Amino acid sequence: MWKESLAIFGGVCLTKFVYDYIFAKKAIPSKIVKEVLFFPDKGIACPNVSCEDKNCRYSHESTCLRALVNHLKSAKKSLDVCVCVFSCHELAETLVYVSKGGVPVRVLSDKSIGDVVNSRIPDLRAKGIPVRIHNTPYLMHHKFAIVDNELLLCGSFNWTRQAVTGNNESVIVTNDKDFVERFCNEFSRLWELNSPQNL
Amino acid sequence: MWKESLAIFGGVCLTKFVYDYIFAKKAIPSKIVKEVLFFPDKGIACPNVSCEDKNCRYSHESTCLRALVNHLKSAKKSLDVCVCVFSCHELAETLVYVSKGGVPVRVLSDKSIGDVVNSRIPDLRAKGIPVRIHNTPYLMHHKFAIVDNELLLCGSFNWTRQAVTGNNESVIVTNDKDFVERFCNEFSRLWELNSPQNL
Repeated sequence: MWKESLAIFGGVCLTKFVYDYIFAKKAIPSKIVKEVLFFPDKGIACPNVSCEDKNCRYSHESTCLRALVNHLKSAKKSLDVCVCVFSCHELAETLVYVSKGGVPVRVLSDKSIGDVVNSRIPDLRAKGIPVRIHNTPYLMHHKFAIVDNELLLCGSFNWTRQAVTGNNESVIVTNDKDFVERFCNEFSRLWELNSPQNL
Repeated sequence: MWKESLAIFGGVCLTKFVYDYIFAKKAIPSKIVKEVLFFPDKGIACPNVSCEDKNCRYSHESTCLRALVNHLKSAKKSLDVCVCVFSCHELAETLVYVSKGGVPVRVLSDKSIGDVVNSRIPDLRAKGIPVRIHNTPYLMHHKFAIVDNELLLCGSFNWTRQAVTGNNESVIVTNDKDFVERFCNEFSRLWELNSPQNL
């Protein structure tokens, strides 16, 4: 009798294992991304990935800026950027590259310190990227971007050259839904709040 | 024969289930913390948790500042703070409270914009909290804290009153080791780098 019971139990387990195996294949979780980029970089990453110019003034090492750019360039559906100060030429070029590839890019920035020397905002607008500017006595002080509503990049890092090669900064990169969804909501909220109709 | 095989398989599964059950009890993972605090708060949280003063000018709603303070006050072993601008009285008082409770508190801040009006740095030093100041032409622009080397709070949020009740800011709160350990290393590195011997 105990042998039959154990056999039935074994049968149930076997069925469950087969079931799990089949469905696990369909439900393999996408790669969990949990990175931290710590700036400053030693130099600006060379925009030419296969550069062989010995006199090139850019850095050819693996840099945090390059990692950041690669994450942004991975956008296939959307790229939302919410950053207080935006003057970094390389990051602006990245957004233009993504936008030209047919991916909708949106930029939200701040009025009070967004009008810095070398602000990329006018260029981005000229290239057809929608930009909205937060204009109150307080700062829209966020520094985050969301790729495809799936990958969050956020931290202390303003998109400036000084932040890349000078300051101590950090950027968390994660696809953890618990974080990503909340930042998606915050972006939507602020984008709507700073709509021309609502200003 | 197949019945015997299935019975053996069932026996193995049963053993595994019992084993898992016993050891799972010992290996229950600690609570996973994954919060995001979005500022601004509508008002400064009342320091008196059980305040019943109807004329009290502070906020008695659940606020992000209160959540932040509660996380900091949960420190039992250590509290490391690495924040560019520190002028918020309530957060300084929290560090003093934690320090008086016997928990070692360390603060790393920045020279260039650390000397703001209402900087809490002199007060913290006067209360015996070790403070080190980063003094280069570039910014120590981080805004993070680590509780007990186990809980990370990081984001765009400088520890100022304007950041609490004015700006749009975000603070990620997590005990994910993949993030926490890297920030612990960054804190140690910068703390050592800004040691009086190394300046």
